[in-house]
Parts: sequence; structure tokens; C-alpha cells
Amino acid sequence: MVSADPLAGRLVADRARVDTGLEALFTSRSAPSPRLEAAMRHGLLVGGKRLRPVLVYAAGRALGAADDDLDAPAMALELVHAYSLVHDDLPAMDDDDLRRGQPTVHRAYDEATAILAGDALQALAFEVLARTAHPRLPALVASLAAAAGRDGMVAGQALDLAAVGGHPDAAALAAMHGHKTGALIRAAVRLGGLVAVDEADPRLAALDAYADAIGLAFQIHDDVLDVTGDTATLGKTSGADAARAKPTYPSLLGLEGARRRADELVEAALAALAPLGVAATPLTDLARYMIERDH
Amino acid sequence: MVSADPLAGRLVADRARVDTGLEALFTSRSAPSPRLEAAMRHGLLVGGKRLRPVLVYAAGRALGAADDDLDAPAMALELVHAYSLVHDDLPAMDDDDLRRGQPTVHRAYDEATAILAGDALQALAFEVLARTAHPRLPALVASLAAAAGRDGMVAGQALDLAAVGGHPDAAALAAMHGHKTGALIRAAVRLGGLVAVDEADPRLAALDAYADAIGLAFQIHDDVLDVTGDTATLGKTSGADAARAKPTYPSLLGLEGARRRADELVEAALAALAPLGVAATPLTDLARYMIERDH
Repeated sequence: MVSADPLAGRLVADRARVDTGLEALFTSRSAPSPRLEAAMRHGLLVGGKRLRPVLVYAAGRALGAADDDLDAPAMALELVHAYSLVHDDLPAMDDDDLRRGQPTVHRAYDEATAILAGDALQALAFEVLARTAHPRLPALVASLAAAAGRDGMVAGQALDLAAVGGHPDAAALAAMHGHKTGALIRAAVRLGGLVAVDEADPRLAALDAYADAIGLAFQIHDDVLDVTGDTATLGKTSGADAARAKPTYPSLLGLEGARRRADELVEAALAALAPLGVAATPLTDLARYMIERDH
Repeated sequence: MVSADPLAGRLVADRARVDTGLEALFTSRSAPSPRLEAAMRHGLLVGGKRLRPVLVYAAGRALGAADDDLDAPAMALELVHAYSLVHDDLPAMDDDDLRRGQPTVHRAYDEATAILAGDALQALAFEVLARTAHPRLPALVASLAAAAGRDGMVAGQALDLAAVGGHPDAAALAAMHGHKTGALIRAAVRLGGLVAVDEADPRLAALDAYADAIGLAFQIHDDVLDVTGDTATLGKTSGADAARAKPTYPSLLGLEGARRRADELVEAALAALAPLGVAATPLTDLARYMIERDH
């Protein structure tokens, strides 16, 4: 069924596209450890919005990349994201029982298997990316690795753990989220762009500015949903932030203040895309989606 | 001081070379999370034989690679190895307090920080490798990722955990170690070779056979040391395998049987190197070192 809403139709198609690719990583192969393999599948393939792959496709197409060349970066981004969720949910970290409406990997399997499944998903991300042999592979790998590691996502998780029970101001909260979720969203947009153009192309800077704005808007909206959403729709425990005394945008700016800030960020994202013209329409649609989604 | 023993001299020089490179990854930079950064340093820079980097250098030189081109693969191998040790030591895994004569990362810091430090060390491995922009980077990244992940090291750790308390035969034990330690030792030798020659070069197959043999010899000798060594020399708790009822080569073949098997494997490794002639002398020295080291 083709949706009348262009964004909704593209979301469905792109999710199906990346899911087909991710599924194929687990078929027609003999796994040395079937239990590890099953835990990886569970962490990767049970639900998920596939937001990062969708951004890879949208950003790449906006600069003229072919879908076939975007598949590997799209999969790599989702693999890194999935590994980070598996590890973030561990008892020593956020200690979550539920993710994407299903038991978390350490609940469905065990803690050791969850640690290893996350580790293997990260390695698989780089393997999938490297198998493309894209002429700009060095930049693709370096960008993803930098976004995933100590200057990006992992640093954000470390800052997040350190902030629990503390009282960071809006700037500190933005810095934490800029690493924790922002770095990978920026990488999604950047890898898509890099498939099409060289690192020196000024349109990549426009994509970076767009990604920074929607990354933070996404996180603010996530915090808002944690207050206003219900567990069934979210697929994870609502109210979890407050229960854990985690600093959030609603706790800092109030619910309306947080919503206003997210709106401003989406406006900034749209302004950043102006130089790209009509080719960026799918990206502008996605920016609005970031703060309109209900889960 | 130059050692009279060529192998000892090269080991000292190569360890110093890779340590200089690894140290430099942590200087002149502003870390978003200083605690994460310190935990990464602890896991990476406190002690260690640097066996995998030494193998990268020896294998690369045997096929004519320049030292400068081998530095990044050497560092990447050690970063992956270090991350795996940090995670293997976690309470949910081997639950070790001591590593390389120092408190393990989760003991020196905390469990969450240890999980994150391991994650970031893995990402850093691929970042360091990608920054080289070597013409065979796709093969370098794919080989390292495959060796590190679900078909290699991580699978081996999963098989190892599943084997505790069980009664695997020699073939099952070899399969487990072939993944757990063998895959990364093979990758070290292969990446060194790939820096010098194309994937189709038949000398890479000779290096693979060499690596498979020394990888298993290394593990058997490790098991032997766990029985015969003392905690101070090993830098980790001796007798830990027996205490945990872990299946080992000495428990399967007896101490003398295990030593004999390791000797046979080293002979096989030397035979595999024959086509490489005198250029392989450092590799033959390393094969003997594998079963003569006391820690």
C-alpha cells in the first residue's frame, strides 16, 4: 500500500529496505555461537524506528547518491545504534527490562551474552561498511568510528551516567545529548552525504548544521515523550527518567519550554538546508517528524 | 641498550614503538569525559606484552612493508585486544580482579565505565586504522572486524563461557580457542601482510597457516602457565582456570601432553614459513617465543 503522505511512504519503504539488508546479515551462514547470534538478532531486529538509516538515505539522496551505495552506511549506523542500546540497558548502566516493547537482551538471554552481542554488533557495523570498498571508505569509517567512540556516543553515555542525580544546566545537558545521541545522528547524515560528495563539499557543512539541530530536537522530544507518553506506545517504560532523577529538558525548562525549544531547533534545521533547495525536501519532512512522532 | 639476542632486541623496540603510538592517542586532546578517557588508558596502557602489534610488524616486514605503514594496524590490533580484556574481566564474564599486575578496569573504576571504556577502545581501533587511508583499507578494516566479531573473537568468548563446567574434547577446545585468541592473532599477521601485498598473494596463505599454528600454541602455553606459573610473574591470578573448572589443554592432555602439542604446532608454523625464506626469521623467532615465555 502506498501512503498518500510522502514522508510516511518513504519511512515505510526505507525501513523495509534497511531491514531487508540487516536480516540478510543473519541468513545463509553458519554461526560459531548460535546463542550469540540469536542475541544479536534480538538486539537488532526486534522493533526500532530505523531513524538513523532513514537519515542516511535522505541525506545521501539530497546530494545525489544512489540507494544501492547508501545501504551499507545505513546498516552500519543501525548496527552501532543497536549495540549501544544493548549495552545501555545493562544492569550496570540504565538497568532496563524493556526495549522496543520486548525484553532487553540481558533479560531475554543473560548479561554476559548481552555484553558480547553488543560488542559483536559494533564489529559488524565496521565489517558491513568496509565490504562496500567505497572510494571514500577512509572518511566513512573514520567518521562513524569517531561518532561512536570516546568523542561521541560513548562519551555521551559516560556523561549521562555521571549526571544522574546531579543538576546540570541547559548547556551541560545539551553537551551530554550532543554526544550521546547527537553524534550518531550527525554521523548518519554525514555518511549519507559522504557517499555522494567529497569531504570538502560545502553542502556537507549545511548537513552538519541540520543534523546538530535535529539531533537535539530529537532528544528534547524524547524527554517530552517520557513525561507525556504511555509505556505501551513508547515500547519502553514511561516516566523512567523522573523515577531515576535523571536531568531532562522538561525538568529544566518545563514541558512547554521544552516543546518551544524543540520547535526552534527544527526551524534552525530547516534554515540550514536552504542552500540545498528542493532536493532537501525529505530532510525537511524528517526534521518535523522528529518532534511530531508519538514514540 | 641493544640486546645481544635479536628477538629480545626487536621485542623491546617494537613494544616501545607501538606504545609511543598508543600513548600519543591520549595526549594533546580535550576529552569530553575524562573518567572514560582514564579508564581507557588504564585498560590499554598498563602493562601488556604487545604480542599482536609485534606480530603485525614481523609479518609486514617479512613481505617488505615499511614500519611507518604498519603502525596503525599494530595499534588497532592492540586496541581490539585491550577492549576484549576489559570486557572479559567484567563480573558478568570472567569476574577477574587482576590483569597485567594491576586492578582490572571495573575494579579501578566501576562496571559501567569498564563497559564503556571497552566499547570506546573498539571504536578507536577502527578510527586509527581508517586514518591511514591505505589503498587496501577495505580489506584491512574487513579483516579486523571479522576477526574481532561474531565469527572470531567474540564468538570464542561466547563459546568459552558456554564451556565452563562442561567437558569439551580437544577438537571443541581448539575450535573455541581458534575463535577466542586465534582469530585476532591471525588478523595481526594478516593485516601486517596486507599492508605489503594484495589479497591474492600466495604468501598470505603461508602467513595464515603460520598464524593458525602459533595461535593455538600460544593458547596451550597460556593454559600451561596457568598451572605452572605464579601470580606475580603472570600478572594475573594463577590457577584461575582450575578454580573455575575451565576446560584446558593440561586438564585434557596432561601437562606433558599439552607441552608436546605446543611443540608440534610450533614445528608446523615453521614449516609453513618455508616459502618466505630468510625474510621470515623474525617470525620463526616469535613462534618459539610463544611457547618459551614465562608470562
